[in-house]
Amino acid sequence: MKSAVVLLSGGLDSYTAAAIAKADGCDLNALTIHYGQRHAREVEAARAVAKSLGVARHRELTVDLRAFGGSSLTSDAAVPLDRDLEATDIPSTYVPARNTIFLSLALGWAEVLGARHLVIGVNALDYSGYPDCRPEFVRAFETLANLATRAGVEGEQFHVETPLIMMTKAEIIRRGMTLGLDYSLTHSCYAPLPSGRPCERCDSCVLRARGFAAAGVPDPLLAHP
Amino acid sequence: MKSAVVLLSGGLDSYTAAAIAKADGCDLNALTIHYGQRHAREVEAARAVAKSLGVARHRELTVDLRAFGGSSLTSDAAVPLDRDLEATDIPSTYVPARNTIFLSLALGWAEVLGARHLVIGVNALDYSGYPDCRPEFVRAFETLANLATRAGVEGEQFHVETPLIMMTKAEIIRRGMTLGLDYSLTHSCYAPLPSGRPCERCDSCVLRARGFAAAGVPDPLLAHP
Repeated sequence: MKSAVVLLSGGLDSYTAAAIAKADGCDLNALTIHYGQRHAREVEAARAVAKSLGVARHRELTVDLRAFGGSSLTSDAAVPLDRDLEATDIPSTYVPARNTIFLSLALGWAEVLGARHLVIGVNALDYSGYPDCRPEFVRAFETLANLATRAGVEGEQFHVETPLIMMTKAEIIRRGMTLGLDYSLTHSCYAPLPSGRPCERCDSCVLRARGFAAAGVPDPLLAHP
Repeated sequence: MKSAVVLLSGGLDSYTAAAIAKADGCDLNALTIHYGQRHAREVEAARAVAKSLGVARHRELTVDLRAFGGSSLTSDAAVPLDRDLEATDIPSTYVPARNTIFLSLALGWAEVLGARHLVIGVNALDYSGYPDCRPEFVRAFETLANLATRAGVEGEQFHVETPLIMMTKAEIIRRGMTLGLDYSLTHSCYAPLPSGRPCERCDSCVLRARGFAAAGVPDPLLAHP
């Protein structure tokens, strides 16, 4: 059985990526990072998702990136609402080096566990244009992983699995439905209302809504107020 | 003026690497990671070293790698003493993916600061054989950094500076002496005695002692009991 460390945020994408890896025969070890994200509610979602997936282990690690700031997700700057998703600039919700930091942590744990697969739910189609969601970034990390570690030196290979990278959000949701996933467990919103309900205006909410609409199914998170 | 983020552990190497970068005209921002190392005393040394170097900023960040274990530096396993340093195996003091994690964090902060230089005191000669101290690892991280970030996408280049990588420990110490460094501020030992004194038997102590002996100067840390 293949053993994997999966970065589990509590969002729709990482849940689906983890479920695909599980369906492909991976034993899952879930890693959730408290990075000082303002939408800390997603960590509760990650716990529910991990339980639902039946992961072998779930670790939560704190790395408070508010120490650096530089993102509207880790500072008091406003999260942009109603943004033009066709715009080509990288939005303020980009967290500098976040996926590099997350994959590095996953790599460290994977090496200890003897796991050789790192699973991350990045997506390069229906996304916000973050540089660390692109295939060339993923390949460069894989090269690095095999130079950085004892396992790599000893001739073993780490693989970074990105099952969603070339799927549209609708395709991701449809795939999740066929796997029987319960998306009511997830949390996507960057700027939840005081009630915890999604704002429905940030990039993450808008991409999610478009995905459910295109998939032709209702979002269970909105169906149950 | 070039702006740099330097990984400052409180050891001899990172102090010297930082001083070389400063002498080369870099404005220094020091980053120290509390990673659950048993020799947490080095963090106090990092504060003294940062002050002595006159850094622009010094940040300390906690990333508790004891959550993963897998190293005698982050678990209750014994640190090896009197080890054969000519042995080719990677010792238990190797911390899985540590330099990848540290450089990733430095990259995140550097991007926020607008700094384009990352300084790390890795050394591939008088060292313990850690895979993430080798030139090929450093070059792979540099490639990754420029794919992972907004700055990289916008055509700016990150540079990973490793001024010590091809120096012997004696050369590092001699260079530090010419720069007027006070090595009594540093801490190298992996397994300090209850008094805080170095054990003089772990890899780090032995490499340090050999370096001072070859440089023909006394170690000020041992001279002042």
